[in-house]
Amino acid sequence: MSLDDPRINAIRTDGDPPGCGPLRSARPSSSLPLRQRIYEKVRSAGRISRAALAKDLEVSPGSVTPVVSDLLATELLCELEDVGQTGARGRPPVTLAVRADRALVAGLKVSDHEYSALLVDLAGQPVARATLPRAAESRSVPRLLDDVAELYARLLATAGDGPPVLGAGLGMPGMLDHASGRMRWSPIMAERDVDLAVCVSERLGIETSVDNDANLLTMAELWFGKGRALSDFAVVTIEYGVGLGLVVDHAPYRGAHGHGMELGHTKVQLDGALCRCGQRGCLEAYVADFALVREAAVALNGEIPPRGEVLEALFAQAKDGNAAARAIFDRAGRYLALGLANVANLFDPNRIILSGSRMRYDFLYAEEMLAEVPGLTLNDPPPIEVNAWDDFVWARGAAALALSDLTPRLLA
Amino acid sequence: MSLDDPRINAIRTDGDPPGCGPLRSARPSSSLPLRQRIYEKVRSAGRISRAALAKDLEVSPGSVTPVVSDLLATELLCELEDVGQTGARGRPPVTLAVRADRALVAGLKVSDHEYSALLVDLAGQPVARATLPRAAESRSVPRLLDDVAELYARLLATAGDGPPVLGAGLGMPGMLDHASGRMRWSPIMAERDVDLAVCVSERLGIETSVDNDANLLTMAELWFGKGRALSDFAVVTIEYGVGLGLVVDHAPYRGAHGHGMELGHTKVQLDGALCRCGQRGCLEAYVADFALVREAAVALNGEIPPRGEVLEALFAQAKDGNAAARAIFDRAGRYLALGLANVANLFDPNRIILSGSRMRYDFLYAEEMLAEVPGLTLNDPPPIEVNAWDDFVWARGAAALALSDLTPRLLA
Repeated sequence: MSLDDPRINAIRTDGDPPGCGPLRSARPSSSLPLRQRIYEKVRSAGRISRAALAKDLEVSPGSVTPVVSDLLATELLCELEDVGQTGARGRPPVTLAVRADRALVAGLKVSDHEYSALLVDLAGQPVARATLPRAAESRSVPRLLDDVAELYARLLATAGDGPPVLGAGLGMPGMLDHASGRMRWSPIMAERDVDLAVCVSERLGIETSVDNDANLLTMAELWFGKGRALSDFAVVTIEYGVGLGLVVDHAPYRGAHGHGMELGHTKVQLDGALCRCGQRGCLEAYVADFALVREAAVALNGEIPPRGEVLEALFAQAKDGNAAARAIFDRAGRYLALGLANVANLFDPNRIILSGSRMRYDFLYAEEMLAEVPGLTLNDPPPIEVNAWDDFVWARGAAALALSDLTPRLLA
Repeated sequence: MSLDDPRINAIRTDGDPPGCGPLRSARPSSSLPLRQRIYEKVRSAGRISRAALAKDLEVSPGSVTPVVSDLLATELLCELEDVGQTGARGRPPVTLAVRADRALVAGLKVSDHEYSALLVDLAGQPVARATLPRAAESRSVPRLLDDVAELYARLLATAGDGPPVLGAGLGMPGMLDHASGRMRWSPIMAERDVDLAVCVSERLGIETSVDNDANLLTMAELWFGKGRALSDFAVVTIEYGVGLGLVVDHAPYRGAHGHGMELGHTKVQLDGALCRCGQRGCLEAYVADFALVREAAVALNGEIPPRGEVLEALFAQAKDGNAAARAIFDRAGRYLALGLANVANLFDPNRIILSGSRMRYDFLYAEEMLAEVPGLTLNDPPPIEVNAWDDFVWARGAAALALSDLTPRLLA
């Protein structure tokens, strides 16, 4: 079955185009100052009147007025006349909007073979994009910083003259802690425990946040994608490993220590297959690249292709009817179904969104795999969608991260 | 190793006594009307001034004043003078408090062998308690309603004259949906899909909410226990099965469909041991009563004790050095460690609180089991505590549920 198979398309949905509507806040509003709640409410509404703002935030109009006046005076909000409508005293009603052109933020994504970048305005609308190939030897931090600086220069050159860039978000696979800005480990980097946010901020001259792939995807879904209408959803991504992002009550859930949701290292068999993390029985040890490659020698009759081409060869053999090769993908698919079922059993999300560049190994995402899930969940599982974002989804998520982190600084 | 072993006590903590301090709100305040946010803030603070209230809620004092005046006029709040202190103009400062004696709520718990009940005031202070033995034949809804009515009558008789009882919470093991009030299935009931909240409400003449055991324990931890100081924690309980309750940002997380967090039915082995739910490889199928009893015949040399005494006999044999009996508890302990590790891997909670009447089978909770957890988590696991509540913990959780659900009605 190929990805063009209509049976697959039936369960796959495309991401909304970027900037297709209002943004929502990335954090529960209860913990935020009124100034920020007002600004984010205006941004999420697109256009809103003062009266509706006070009503939606459940505060008195009197407490909204001075804050809005200040945000107008500092040009963070602007007033728009709703031409064609009639308000009080026969004049067009005036609504508030975010001054989108006041500043820009950059979203930067590092993957094994490519860098991608997006520049968006304060309303989240993309204004420029850029890419840069990534060499296999770019595994050191100095080389990474050189590459990121070149990527960023390309992005600025594409954008031309414009408002200032006030912040950036950078994402890569691995264990990146958003709160501390540290890259603890990444499969595409040689160093460990690097203050990556500090290094990149200094190199680019703009405040930069970092996060891992799964959280970038989650931010992209939350701000631009299928998750906008949902309060509670899960994003599962398969690249080097199996990542999970969670949204609870419209906000990304990062755990108590920012460790990320390590779905890939949940144990699905006691004393099971050895994982790269050194433990046994992890879901990743049955689903990730290295797990499939491990068994490839058997299926390929000992004819091992050059490093980097094993998985493609195995996939081709499986499509050509090699039963052993097919069995490898089948088992991986069943374990993936088990992982998705465990997410459904534990979180009861509104939806599970399955995303990642591995989608070309479509055995993993075939209807057969998805059909296994209900037999592994106690209740009916939520809809599971395969979301076919373009390659810029990561950069888009990084830009959402940057906007989310810029807002308190912008309003300070 | 017994539960009195100091090595066990080192990791076990006792629940705080009931009513030992302020209560916190059970829902994130952002989604609540200002009137409720004010009332719940006063309740959670115990005593608070108007100025501190406005500051904590980040609203203007002007918007607090009329709401407080109304809550004072309707006797939901009261004013107290802080005698001994001096406020503005030389008079003692005035603080606000909840009128705790305006009404009571009841917490009711059904377990296999006993009913327990607690009456608490609007500040959560217990004023009466009652118990009633439960006969094995009480598996029908009419019989349950008779029993609950008798339990409630006992509770009221113990309390004597007092303020009106305005609501109740009722909990039992199984699949109970708090939002719809339905009992979908319970291991101690014959019927399925019963509108239990409606039935109990009509029989007792008071509005009653229902919830499952794990959520009751979670509410008890959140309102009265170890969870009061924590923003994100997990409660794992073993009774008939393995239950999980989650608190995210100080509020119980119930999932998108109220299905509950089915940790017991997460799959820990593909095509593994058969579970009561009909699926294979569930954590429960390795940890719960029935899983231990299934293997008992081997360990007990075919000398099967009467039904209901198998686990006790197996436990006695394990303590007496029967290696096969010990192996049964050892494996269950390892699987429990795996389940706890998966909770840590996925949720990254501040703490995991382990609770439930099974604590007497202390092999499961021994240091050896807890020592397994770090080898099964990618990051350092959070502290895991065994919380030795008394038998009224369930009723206390049910009372917290009732208070939480009463508040909007009280303020309407």
